[in-house]
Amino acid sequence: MITNPPVTVLGLGLMGQALAGTFLRAGHPTTVWNRTASKAEHLVAQGATLAGSPAEAVAASPLVVVCVSDYAAVHELLDPLVLDGKVVVNLTSGTTQTARETAAWAAQRGVTYLDGAIMAIPQAIGTADAVVLYSGPRSAFDSYEPVLKSLAAATTYLGDDHGLSSLYDVALLGLMWSVLNGFLQGAALVGAAGVDASVFEPFARNLIGTVGDWLPPYAKQIDDGTYPAYDSTIDTHLGAMDHLIDESESLGVNPDLPRLIKAVADRAVAAGHGGHGYAAMIEQFRKSPGE
Amino acid sequence: MITNPPVTVLGLGLMGQALAGTFLRAGHPTTVWNRTASKAEHLVAQGATLAGSPAEAVAASPLVVVCVSDYAAVHELLDPLVLDGKVVVNLTSGTTQTARETAAWAAQRGVTYLDGAIMAIPQAIGTADAVVLYSGPRSAFDSYEPVLKSLAAATTYLGDDHGLSSLYDVALLGLMWSVLNGFLQGAALVGAAGVDASVFEPFARNLIGTVGDWLPPYAKQIDDGTYPAYDSTIDTHLGAMDHLIDESESLGVNPDLPRLIKAVADRAVAAGHGGHGYAAMIEQFRKSPGE
Repeated sequence: MITNPPVTVLGLGLMGQALAGTFLRAGHPTTVWNRTASKAEHLVAQGATLAGSPAEAVAASPLVVVCVSDYAAVHELLDPLVLDGKVVVNLTSGTTQTARETAAWAAQRGVTYLDGAIMAIPQAIGTADAVVLYSGPRSAFDSYEPVLKSLAAATTYLGDDHGLSSLYDVALLGLMWSVLNGFLQGAALVGAAGVDASVFEPFARNLIGTVGDWLPPYAKQIDDGTYPAYDSTIDTHLGAMDHLIDESESLGVNPDLPRLIKAVADRAVAAGHGGHGYAAMIEQFRKSPGE
Repeated sequence: MITNPPVTVLGLGLMGQALAGTFLRAGHPTTVWNRTASKAEHLVAQGATLAGSPAEAVAASPLVVVCVSDYAAVHELLDPLVLDGKVVVNLTSGTTQTARETAAWAAQRGVTYLDGAIMAIPQAIGTADAVVLYSGPRSAFDSYEPVLKSLAAATTYLGDDHGLSSLYDVALLGLMWSVLNGFLQGAALVGAAGVDASVFEPFARNLIGTVGDWLPPYAKQIDDGTYPAYDSTIDTHLGAMDHLIDESESLGVNPDLPRLIKAVADRAVAAGHGGHGYAAMIEQFRKSPGE
């Protein structure tokens, strides 16, 4: 592979602009296209080539990176084009289903397809803070890894299944919201006693780091399917969960999240896991509550 | 204050044993008492004095540390005793209400009372990983801080309000369960696609660290009461929350946590915060859903 292969970027929203600008700075001849051409102006000033049409844009490079609003826009853009022999990397946000459908569409047309998920804000593209996850054929990822790596220090291949990048994305977003909501619940509780969120925050941050250290042994228990309690049992957690509900209710703080926490633990106990460690709760997350 | 003042520890469950053992190793003459005296044997072998009664135990030291099963057990133990002039540090798990009631009880009897919450497992007592939070009169904490510090590197005074240590405790436990549940939800999702929890875990841990870095600016927004979106707006989060629900439902993974995440965000949008950053969600946590 030549050192700086040309790259085409379709879609110049905030994220697409960040992608194209980063490819340019990494020394790749970069061709761009956007429905509203004016969004390309500062990229052209930096050396990008503005194509007159999507067809002209994809003809310019063996690697086509797509980042538009949704998968309907992806297909509206790509379906009319001749893409045989191209490698298309789709960084548009979507679901596992839209990713797999687009992979099937690509296979029918002789297009090599990678689906990707950007775990970063546009300002972080090209920095050590950016994470971009890819799924699809390993050989295509390996061929273009040096190019894609300019977008994110953590440029990660997940596997053949095109749905994996979207699945990891949504799984990690769920964790993100959970951490933030846990912090907000705590900040609301101590706030009701007159404690500023900024006073509570260092304790919260310290705790988050501690809990992060528990994840490797918990993950191993989950994979092994055995949950010996080396710290607290779920039975012990339950008593403190009642405290969390009581404090929330008595302070007028929203008790929904505490009640959900307890409800899942109650089901784990009912399923015989009261004497096990917290990782045993995985079985309650794996199935719908009615099962 | 003398360098190694004597300490009395009442209650020798796993945690009480860890507390007494740590005081001993720090060079404090340590007197212990437990309903079942045999639990003191290895402490006595290390140099502890086993008192014949709770009265004899509290007479031996100016500082009395209590760690029993609950506040009912605290009062059963302490109510018959003469404690005038003693400093009682109660590390039994409880609620803000039981802490404040016990503080009122102590005030009536001329006892200086500190309520504490241990954020550590027994094995971590005396190490850099232990956090113990205290609330009550500052002067009492300051006097005994050098002694208490042997229990935990993070020996922290929260304020005069005796309920604060329990409140922080439960607020931080709520965050802990939220982080763990977020991880379990994610592990269940990727697990449904055949990905081991141990493969997902490093991504989860990395994300947790990233989210931890957002807490200081979010805390400042909460304290300021203004929530400019410097990254994603709540409106933007909502679309991805729908994906999380859809993926959970279609993979047969428990959708309760995703639905709760979305429900809170929906209420924030209904309250006019769709264009604000995630910290604006604090207002939904501060009140009951019906309000």
